[in-house]
Amino acid sequence: MKAYQIETILSSNRKQKPVTEQLEFGTIFTDHMFIMDYSVERGWHDPRIIPYQPISLDPAAMVFHYGQTVFEGLKAYLSKDGEVFLFRPDRNFSRMNQSNARLCIPPIDEELAVEALKQLVKIDQDWIPKAEGTSLYIRPFIISTAPHLGVAPSESYQFIIILSPVGSYYKEGIHPVKISVEQNYVRAVAGGTGEAKTGGNYANGLKAQEEAAKLGYSQVLWLDGRENKYIEEVGSMNVFFKINGEIVTPALNGSILQGITRDSIIQLLKHWNIPVIERRISVEEIYQSYREGLLEEAFGTGTAAVISPIGEFLWKGEKLVVNSGEVGQLTRELYDTLTGIQNGTKEDPFGWRVQLR
Amino acid sequence: MKAYQIETILSSNRKQKPVTEQLEFGTIFTDHMFIMDYSVERGWHDPRIIPYQPISLDPAAMVFHYGQTVFEGLKAYLSKDGEVFLFRPDRNFSRMNQSNARLCIPPIDEELAVEALKQLVKIDQDWIPKAEGTSLYIRPFIISTAPHLGVAPSESYQFIIILSPVGSYYKEGIHPVKISVEQNYVRAVAGGTGEAKTGGNYANGLKAQEEAAKLGYSQVLWLDGRENKYIEEVGSMNVFFKINGEIVTPALNGSILQGITRDSIIQLLKHWNIPVIERRISVEEIYQSYREGLLEEAFGTGTAAVISPIGEFLWKGEKLVVNSGEVGQLTRELYDTLTGIQNGTKEDPFGWRVQLR
Repeated sequence: MKAYQIETILSSNRKQKPVTEQLEFGTIFTDHMFIMDYSVERGWHDPRIIPYQPISLDPAAMVFHYGQTVFEGLKAYLSKDGEVFLFRPDRNFSRMNQSNARLCIPPIDEELAVEALKQLVKIDQDWIPKAEGTSLYIRPFIISTAPHLGVAPSESYQFIIILSPVGSYYKEGIHPVKISVEQNYVRAVAGGTGEAKTGGNYANGLKAQEEAAKLGYSQVLWLDGRENKYIEEVGSMNVFFKINGEIVTPALNGSILQGITRDSIIQLLKHWNIPVIERRISVEEIYQSYREGLLEEAFGTGTAAVISPIGEFLWKGEKLVVNSGEVGQLTRELYDTLTGIQNGTKEDPFGWRVQLR
Repeated sequence: MKAYQIETILSSNRKQKPVTEQLEFGTIFTDHMFIMDYSVERGWHDPRIIPYQPISLDPAAMVFHYGQTVFEGLKAYLSKDGEVFLFRPDRNFSRMNQSNARLCIPPIDEELAVEALKQLVKIDQDWIPKAEGTSLYIRPFIISTAPHLGVAPSESYQFIIILSPVGSYYKEGIHPVKISVEQNYVRAVAGGTGEAKTGGNYANGLKAQEEAAKLGYSQVLWLDGRENKYIEEVGSMNVFFKINGEIVTPALNGSILQGITRDSIIQLLKHWNIPVIERRISVEEIYQSYREGLLEEAFGTGTAAVISPIGEFLWKGEKLVVNSGEVGQLTRELYDTLTGIQNGTKEDPFGWRVQLR
């Protein structure tokens, strides 16, 4: 392990911490942030922890015009014994570098990023809420800052990490959501940026989400961009189905995000000797399974909700109710186990949990 | 015409103007900018012209994370008699509102935007360079500013216009570029954001452009995302072909940008009674035309270059040289006529030119 020099300037003006019961997602931020600059001449330089503060950019900064950005999302948890745990943070920075490669952003030093994250969380660890289901959401991101309107990769960047205490995703216990199968809009296509965690993918999805919400559905099920037949993701999560005792999830194909929760669920299922298959899945197949009474459970996976049970799909005007609209047994076991590994109440046979010391 | 109240605060610290011969594209900005805010409570409000200055945003501002942005590009020209002309500015703000609708950004008042643009250009009109081929590039853009990490439309925005004096796109006269037909990457797909002028489309295209540049090609020819067969755009321009005396260009299909230069070229050709057809065009058809000696000319159209003649296509390892790599006669006539209409040296039968008074 290399020793990294990260300068730290502590805030002299600490903010008041929020009431845990009132916490929403991503609206309150802690006292400090990590920041590091990139220039062509110096590469990534000046890693530092500073008081949380506004970013000041020239109006011509490329991030405002050409969307050359990437981001990540992960969480820190406080155990009942006061330990602080991160969940697989190395995977986030490795994925960030994959996103960087697609977006022509210079790669970061992944070890430095993990180290910076640990130091930052340590400084602001009093911000991690204690109640069950709460956590400290961590948002690393890179923006292109060169004040230049030519369409070309930026010559300067900032890599920033901010922290936000978040409430339980399920305030009244884990419950299923209703999902509309998207027929008009497309999230990503082979050859595009679907596999990268970049802003444009999320801006693209807003319209479909808005239209689904009008019909009373909380997210959309995205189909592939070439044939509009094969299932890709649900909202901004990966998706799993339990069909006749077997778990299936869309295989990574270049336009699907390589979810870290997705990977953890697959490993957990294999550990339990439950059959799990990554393959191409058509929406027609899901419909047939449903008609034959074989569609037993469905859920999304992602950092924010961890597991999001799906109680209904709307497809071509027909409502496909899954497991009587209740949380499936396996879905609940996966949720309980994975959140238990994350917050330290359950054994971690995979070595995913990283304790802050 | 409504009367708009646009507050103006003039800069007391004017910058030195650049030497025209050293002008590049989009690196130098004038003394002032236009800015207007949006909030859910007040709608778009406080339109104002202020000294050019940095934008200060919370690190959680949505533009840094989810790419909810739109932009436009147009130019102001100085005639030999000292008149200042804009080119079809109403079309840019009408297209901006189409982009806004796709990106879930609240619409702007198009008349106010044109009026604000006129007032801003008037204040900074001494920045418009005089030499032939030079102009003042105008960049209106909207960014999402709410400090909120939830994936949903922002609750606040800024609409900004900045101005940049730009040199002639063709420093040594109009000349053809070499284009590589893109086989791996896809710019846009039906159901995506291809028709909107939003950052993600441009971030997406950087990688393909970088790889084409390594092979000595300045831009790529984008094919459709569904079948990878049909021609969509070239780099960040629309594309036209002259085949056996007839002009063809890809029909607008939802994933192609509705170029204002594209529209002007089509109207100009119709005005000249030259056959011009908007339809689906496969790259195979272009290849066959080339083999039969019928591919006479090819060019891209966009605000920056106006017309960009294409001298060669690289497709599956084969070099398709167009018109011996020279600028075609019709391409040159279109360039001379359209730039003449824009800068006031030629008659404008369409009423496209808008004089600043």
